[in-house]
Amino acid sequence: MSSNTTRVAVLGATGYVGGQLLAILAGHPAARVTVATTVRHAGQTLADVHPALAPLGHLPLEALDTAAIADRADVVLSALPHGESAAVLGELVDAGLMVADLSADYRFADPAAYAAAYGHPHPRPDLAARAVYGLVEFNRAAIRASRLVGVPGCYPTATLLALLPALQGGLIDPAQGVVVDAKSGISGAGRDAKTQNLFCEVDGGVRAYNVGTHRHQPEMAFQAAALGGRAVPVFFTPQVVPMSRGILASVYARLAPGVTEADLRAAYHKAYAGTPFGQVLPEGSFPNTRQVAGTNRFAVGITADRETGQAALLCVIDNLVKGAAGQAIQCMNLMLGLPEETGLPVMGGVA
Amino acid sequence: MSSNTTRVAVLGATGYVGGQLLAILAGHPAARVTVATTVRHAGQTLADVHPALAPLGHLPLEALDTAAIADRADVVLSALPHGESAAVLGELVDAGLMVADLSADYRFADPAAYAAAYGHPHPRPDLAARAVYGLVEFNRAAIRASRLVGVPGCYPTATLLALLPALQGGLIDPAQGVVVDAKSGISGAGRDAKTQNLFCEVDGGVRAYNVGTHRHQPEMAFQAAALGGRAVPVFFTPQVVPMSRGILASVYARLAPGVTEADLRAAYHKAYAGTPFGQVLPEGSFPNTRQVAGTNRFAVGITADRETGQAALLCVIDNLVKGAAGQAIQCMNLMLGLPEETGLPVMGGVA
Amino acid sequence: MSSNTTRVAVLGATGYVGGQLLAILAGHPAARVTVATTVRHAGQTLADVHPALAPLGHLPLEALDTAAIADRADVVLSALPHGESAAVLGELVDAGLMVADLSADYRFADPAAYAAAYGHPHPRPDLAARAVYGLVEFNRAAIRASRLVGVPGCYPTATLLALLPALQGGLIDPAQGVVVDAKSGISGAGRDAKTQNLFCEVDGGVRAYNVGTHRHQPEMAFQAAALGGRAVPVFFTPQVVPMSRGILASVYARLAPGVTEADLRAAYHKAYAGTPFGQVLPEGSFPNTRQVAGTNRFAVGITADRETGQAALLCVIDNLVKGAAGQAIQCMNLMLGLPEETGLPVMGGVA
Amino acid sequence: MSSNTTRVAVLGATGYVGGQLLAILAGHPAARVTVATTVRHAGQTLADVHPALAPLGHLPLEALDTAAIADRADVVLSALPHGESAAVLGELVDAGLMVADLSADYRFADPAAYAAAYGHPHPRPDLAARAVYGLVEFNRAAIRASRLVGVPGCYPTATLLALLPALQGGLIDPAQGVVVDAKSGISGAGRDAKTQNLFCEVDGGVRAYNVGTHRHQPEMAFQAAALGGRAVPVFFTPQVVPMSRGILASVYARLAPGVTEADLRAAYHKAYAGTPFGQVLPEGSFPNTRQVAGTNRFAVGITADRETGQAALLCVIDNLVKGAAGQAIQCMNLMLGLPEETGLPVMGGVA
Repeated sequence: MSSNTTRVAVLGATGYVGGQLLAILAGHPAARVTVATTVRHAGQTLADVHPALAPLGHLPLEALDTAAIADRADVVLSALPHGESAAVLGELVDAGLMVADLSADYRFADPAAYAAAYGHPHPRPDLAARAVYGLVEFNRAAIRASRLVGVPGCYPTATLLALLPALQGGLIDPAQGVVVDAKSGISGAGRDAKTQNLFCEVDGGVRAYNVGTHRHQPEMAFQAAALGGRAVPVFFTPQVVPMSRGILASVYARLAPGVTEADLRAAYHKAYAGTPFGQVLPEGSFPNTRQVAGTNRFAVGITADRETGQAALLCVIDNLVKGAAGQAIQCMNLMLGLPEETGLPVMGGVA
Repeated sequence: MSSNTTRVAVLGATGYVGGQLLAILAGHPAARVTVATTVRHAGQTLADVHPALAPLGHLPLEALDTAAIADRADVVLSALPHGESAAVLGELVDAGLMVADLSADYRFADPAAYAAAYGHPHPRPDLAARAVYGLVEFNRAAIRASRLVGVPGCYPTATLLALLPALQGGLIDPAQGVVVDAKSGISGAGRDAKTQNLFCEVDGGVRAYNVGTHRHQPEMAFQAAALGGRAVPVFFTPQVVPMSRGILASVYARLAPGVTEADLRAAYHKAYAGTPFGQVLPEGSFPNTRQVAGTNRFAVGITADRETGQAALLCVIDNLVKGAAGQAIQCMNLMLGLPEETGLPVMGGVA
Repeated sequence: MSSNTTRVAVLGATGYVGGQLLAILAGHPAARVTVATTVRHAGQTLADVHPALAPLGHLPLEALDTAAIADRADVVLSALPHGESAAVLGELVDAGLMVADLSADYRFADPAAYAAAYGHPHPRPDLAARAVYGLVEFNRAAIRASRLVGVPGCYPTATLLALLPALQGGLIDPAQGVVVDAKSGISGAGRDAKTQNLFCEVDGGVRAYNVGTHRHQPEMAFQAAALGGRAVPVFFTPQVVPMSRGILASVYARLAPGVTEADLRAAYHKAYAGTPFGQVLPEGSFPNTRQVAGTNRFAVGITADRETGQAALLCVIDNLVKGAAGQAIQCMNLMLGLPEETGLPVMGGVA
Repeated sequence: MSSNTTRVAVLGATGYVGGQLLAILAGHPAARVTVATTVRHAGQTLADVHPALAPLGHLPLEALDTAAIADRADVVLSALPHGESAAVLGELVDAGLMVADLSADYRFADPAAYAAAYGHPHPRPDLAARAVYGLVEFNRAAIRASRLVGVPGCYPTATLLALLPALQGGLIDPAQGVVVDAKSGISGAGRDAKTQNLFCEVDGGVRAYNVGTHRHQPEMAFQAAALGGRAVPVFFTPQVVPMSRGILASVYARLAPGVTEADLRAAYHKAYAGTPFGQVLPEGSFPNTRQVAGTNRFAVGITADRETGQAALLCVIDNLVKGAAGQAIQCMNLMLGLPEETGLPVMGGVA
């Protein structure tokens, strides 16, 4: 790669999100990875932990060293855990680097909302207030102008992409709240060895967990209000299905008086027209996570039932791409003044 | 088996529901299969079409012949297709046999409701009005007294088991309707060769279909009113997940004023106490289809959110057992005056 | 259950093999579980660790205490780890209990062979020499007469069932050795939390490991000689496929001079005629693990190629049933003087 | 794309191989698809049949018309069925187009060998004799000089990549033959609706089929002799595992006298050094199809057992990429005078 490309540090390179960042960046025309950090695998090669990325085998895995990163990188894409990220990334922002944080630490502009959701005070309230929420389709200008982006959670990404055009347009009644019923592949649970994520425990079953109490619920509500302009109570049911990648979020809302399915459909077409990754499905067609797997795209299917006054707003994403690594790179592209789609995958797998 | 056991005819023996019926009946202490019918495989052995049932290999597959069935069987368990079933089974009822019908044909006591849902007049309105809906936990006495049972659809089974205790108890507000978001294994789509059900099309993806228009939606609404005693609009989203068996139905309803989670929980414990197959999960615990796969059991997890007034009522079943073959045999047991759990599997698989 | 049934202790009840033992024993007409031990879950209920076995929820999980077991059980079925088992089970045998050991500790009558395979001296060489290898179809009389059975490994079970009829009959040339290429579901790796067994690491891939060096290779060679009467070098390739249960072992051998496929086929029919679990597939038909999953059955498919002198001997089992828990109970039945098939599942799943 | 890129026709665009061709070509810097043909979907859009390729939605699906193709394309990549391909592609070669044929029709330079394997005379024996076998790593120069390539079958690709370095180097004894035991994802069976390829029939099972009689067996033997320079009898067992993509071929051969694992390893390193897609795994490491899924790479793991004289040569590929579409494009690149790796994917998925 040419030496005038942007130098990128990937923090937490050995997990699924870190690996996905590296896989996408390998094909990015204007960025190159100069640092890849790890907690437990320092000294190993990348090929040891991600055999599917064998062509990147030369990249050494290093222990985290903020001074070295500040020296050797321009941009930081971080997949460090919640709680640990705020302070480390704060240092790197202070040192002048651009940062996209995939943890929850910079997703709440209001430190009190963060504290309520995560149960401890925010370590860097000064930066939290300046950080920008990286849901590109609804926050493009702010991201372009920022140097610290809190990349949305996977469930909130799918949910907000399904919800915001209707909410912004006043087409649903926010006072009645929304129900979000989401189905996720198990890669969202990360790569730590846990019995409940073993193949034998996941295969052949779908299960619900943390119903009404998941930490993405306050993130959804906070950002629905912030980006949608209307407070809306959110009730969220996360569920795990036996697959690696993908989220299908089904959002249920009450139609505002007089609103038809055609009104809804028009709002979604308007919201996503001209965006590189959004697709609004035709009437009677509903999304399948397979159609976006491996890509930064998302697809939305909508329907409205006059009789019951119910709207169903469904969105699919790949949780590791649009729901994590891809969206972080989309944000990086904007911060660097590049077209947002630069280097991002759009073509999925046919089998 | 002793010659004084009940003689059972299984109609449509080569599909997944037919095979499940045979598998369970093989271990039933008071019934034996004397007839197994097929449309396309007459002359083949059962082991040809269901290699997993090799010990039943001796059973011949026969073309459907109602006179022969009337001669050689006392009870009919039918997995014939919708539309075809009503007339054939009508003849067998007329001939004095007990019938449990797994198609939709005898699920609506009101022929007009059937016609509205299925788009054609009912061929035997006389019998439809006398048929009993086979949701045992809420219709035990009527099933015991009947000779023709319409076995519930797989989605309605999971949905009604989740919904009815709250609805019957007046703990939710029926006027605001309920949303049913269900996730099903692909065996529910049957065994016909269709491209969309190929392994490569199903694996790795979750997809929604027929949102708000699935034929089980009117069945849910009809039976919620009939068994729950209150009309409640139902909005239903079916979704397919990459697994063979299991349904997780998540039912969302608005709490009636003043109702707490403890009230809900008490109602579910009361509804299912003493039943052989129902399990109410403790607070904060939500169900996994794996915990009931291969069994006639069901498990319910519930939560209520005071702030938003939302109740979430979740139920898991094995769609081929409690959602089909097992429930049919549970109904047969009652019609025969046997304990309802006779011969039904309750122990699942640990991996 | 009646109080005169045999009292069984299951050691290591929380893993997949332990759970499978409990699931089968729950339906056994002549045995009841009185003790279930655990290392890490003492004080929890069985339903906590095996939700699919909810009807056994009352069974307490206890820390291992050999004196208590000797008091409260007649038979021990042990899924303790290799190395730990020999001493613990030795004590229980000394105390007069019947033992079926699912670890490798009592699979080698020759302690030197054990030491060579497992890298440490046998802790109880006295018992090792008296222990009987629990491959029922080829060691029935010895098992019936024994009080300590070393239950075969999962791979050796499938391999020896495929190999022995040909080897015993002199139909293959032992001097040229055999190649065993086996494909296993991941439950064979146990329930410990390991990154490589996570759903995301297993799904969508098949991988080979320990080629030519797996510890089951010496077990296969030792028992082929012991039970087959002829020393035969074995080269073994284990492979993991993305499923929970099942092993397909493909055994390749050179035909002895003049031997035809018909000769082979006759030998297999003779070997398995009248056995409750063996099935020899017809010419041109080859086995699928699905046809035996969930059962104690096995199916063998064979072919011989005159041109190349090659024989292919294929066998499928469920690794947790015939390859572990089921076979242990089959051995227990014989030791107790019961028909070997007592309480064992033979009907598989149709979807 | 610039107008001076090569114009490519994809025949049989709606299957898995056709879709994979389109997905890769979408990112190819020097080729553009101008024609996509179909038998059953003419008039539909590509997005209808391959929703994952939504960005190619504009591409019309057309009925096959050789004159139109000759007009509008320079290169033909064909995924038409065996038997149909020879004549159609013959016309296009006659018309001056470059052709890479993914069917079996041009894989045998000897029409008699074709007729023996496929049971009917070759329709274009003149062209069969001139066609070049497209296993790039062993036939690079001939492919570069050709205008008609028979792209290898998926199983032969993995098998020959595993076998040829040892065979060419005289490191194994060809007289003793080789056994090929291969495990494939189900996409190799194509996209036609067949009951045996339904999710419920494939999930949770591994099965063998056509043992010793599969049509890829003569292809392997023919090309082993042609490219390896030594006739070697091949015995082939194909097996299907529950995944969409990937083949693991395990090749078993007898070591030539005195040959060590180090000799073998050196031969493989030499064979694949400097190739863009080959990877030889270190001692004791064996391949996983996941490490090459979605890419045109292949990985080889080898071991040799002195005691038994056995060599095990294992290779993994993605059957739709290196085993089909990717290899066809690799051949096209060579025919066009481009670097063989142009536009081909090398980075796999991390989850």
